Amino acid sequence: MSLEKLSVNRAFGGELTKYKFKSEVLGGTFAQFNLFLPANAAYGKVPVLFYLSGLTCTEDNATQKGCFLGPAAQEGIALIFPDTSPRGAGIEGEADDWQFGVGAGFYVDATNPKFAKHYNMLSFVTRELPEVVQAAGVPIDFTRQSIFGHSMGGHGALTIYLNSVLKGTKVYRSASAFSPISNPTKCPWGERAFTGFLQGGIEEARDKYDATELIAKMSKEPLHILIDYGTGDNFYKQGQLLPENFLKVARDVGYDEVQVRVRSQEGYDHSYYFISTFGADHIHCMFFLPYLVTENDSPVPIKVHANFLKA
Amino acid sequence: MSLEKLSVNRAFGGELTKYKFKSEVLGGTFAQFNLFLPANAAYGKVPVLFYLSGLTCTEDNATQKGCFLGPAAQEGIALIFPDTSPRGAGIEGEADDWQFGVGAGFYVDATNPKFAKHYNMLSFVTRELPEVVQAAGVPIDFTRQSIFGHSMGGHGALTIYLNSVLKGTKVYRSASAFSPISNPTKCPWGERAFTGFLQGGIEEARDKYDATELIAKMSKEPLHILIDYGTGDNFYKQGQLLPENFLKVARDVGYDEVQVRVRSQEGYDHSYYFISTFGADHIHCMFFLPYLVTENDSPVPIKVHANFLKA
Repeated sequence: MSLEKLSVNRAFGGELTKYKFKSEVLGGTFAQFNLFLPANAAYGKVPVLFYLSGLTCTEDNATQKGCFLGPAAQEGIALIFPDTSPRGAGIEGEADDWQFGVGAGFYVDATNPKFAKHYNMLSFVTRELPEVVQAAGVPIDFTRQSIFGHSMGGHGALTIYLNSVLKGTKVYRSASAFSPISNPTKCPWGERAFTGFLQGGIEEARDKYDATELIAKMSKEPLHILIDYGTGDNFYKQGQLLPENFLKVARDVGYDEVQVRVRSQEGYDHSYYFISTFGADHIHCMFFLPYLVTENDSPVPIKVHANFLKA
Repeated sequence: MSLEKLSVNRAFGGELTKYKFKSEVLGGTFAQFNLFLPANAAYGKVPVLFYLSGLTCTEDNATQKGCFLGPAAQEGIALIFPDTSPRGAGIEGEADDWQFGVGAGFYVDATNPKFAKHYNMLSFVTRELPEVVQAAGVPIDFTRQSIFGHSMGGHGALTIYLNSVLKGTKVYRSASAFSPISNPTKCPWGERAFTGFLQGGIEEARDKYDATELIAKMSKEPLHILIDYGTGDNFYKQGQLLPENFLKVARDVGYDEVQVRVRSQEGYDHSYYFISTFGADHIHCMFFLPYLVTENDSPVPIKVHANFLKA
């Protein structure tokens, strides 16, 4: 599991490094990821924010187009950008559909025998990748980690976070998402993924891989969630995202906008122009220092920064 | 010369639009460019900043990777991103070398008959493109324009600006550049470009297309220039950029760091990670409002914003 360094770029006073390693949970394929360390990591361990990308993306899309590195440097936190699936597994048909398979791992652990050896992005993101980074001596404090993502990656971030809260493991301090697939058992993307990756299909997914189903099971455990979606997003219009379902259930369960904030952004689409517009908000809101440096797990109001866009 | 709208993305409260039109000065080929308009353009004309991209780039690299749109929205200015050469001219061998021809127009007007019909990026950027945008009724105030760029585009921005100052036309209020090709008659990139595009070769270029030669001709005309380059930039190390030549001549002529500021950035490379790190600086420094809204053309100190990177 040794890390190979593929490239280094200095950025915003810190460093962005691309790594590669042989992944056990992805069936022995080689996995690449990007890691941003802020300047202050030279003086001690820093908190970390995982970013999960959407369909068709690699570890590069968000590092290049998200405008996340500047805000992360300002907050003094690390960012980790995994890929979206195993690469080179060699499974028949795995790259035939941009919505499933290569570039579309959906952050699940596959139970369908055809995919079970390689398609385990859930274990990759939550277990193997943090272990590998930690073993390499990277100055990250994994007791202070959080997770966000876009579209399929928003689905990943929300379900990983909610599962960690439900299990009481408190691994992640917060989750946020741009245009997440919020109720995947009820949309074509989720149906395609779950019937493909899971032996039990959609029924098997309901319990573990659907943010709307998961929040319905909550009993007022403290939450810290921010979601943005654009009203001009074609995938939203097509019913692939369904943030309204997630919001309705969250309110029914009793979460207010301090704990679960869902913002509708007029006219924005599904692209990185949308993501980069609100990326600083997500990083600053979810990572303001008081929340991360204390061990206090009671809910903290989401501090929405002064934003010229709202003026 | 009517504009065709290819796409629109909402971003940072404004809109990014990709346009296409048949360019006369590029020999009847179709030219694409991106235009960002901030929200305030709905209420009146706004100043504009042209961005000239580097070798191999199109109109998209900087819009996607530069992190410029947020700072432009904050300042309330428009951005225009032209392509780097004509496309589809059909000249033999024009796409054989990434350093010359397609994607590498060098912001000159070609005099070599082989290229003279199509390769006129200087006239395109300074004349045809502003005219087309103005004719389309886009709310831009072209009495308040400025120009910046990267590498080959930094060369373009500096030479276009310095020529406008030397001619007394005062078309541009300022110029800034990331890792510009600063003395192209003395580097391989410039030699290749000038011997290819210009009938008179390097001798013809010296008078018009070399920033270091141009600033040597100044007689203390007020200037407003900012340059950043990275000490880890391989092209800098190879002697393709030579910002030190430009700086030396600028100081010899008598320009101080208020009028010509050249900053060496430790460890940064030639990539958009470098550009995006200092992009906000360039936009805020060169476009602070007092400079643009007054008709005062006397030199104004470059206001370097409080920058967390320097702390």
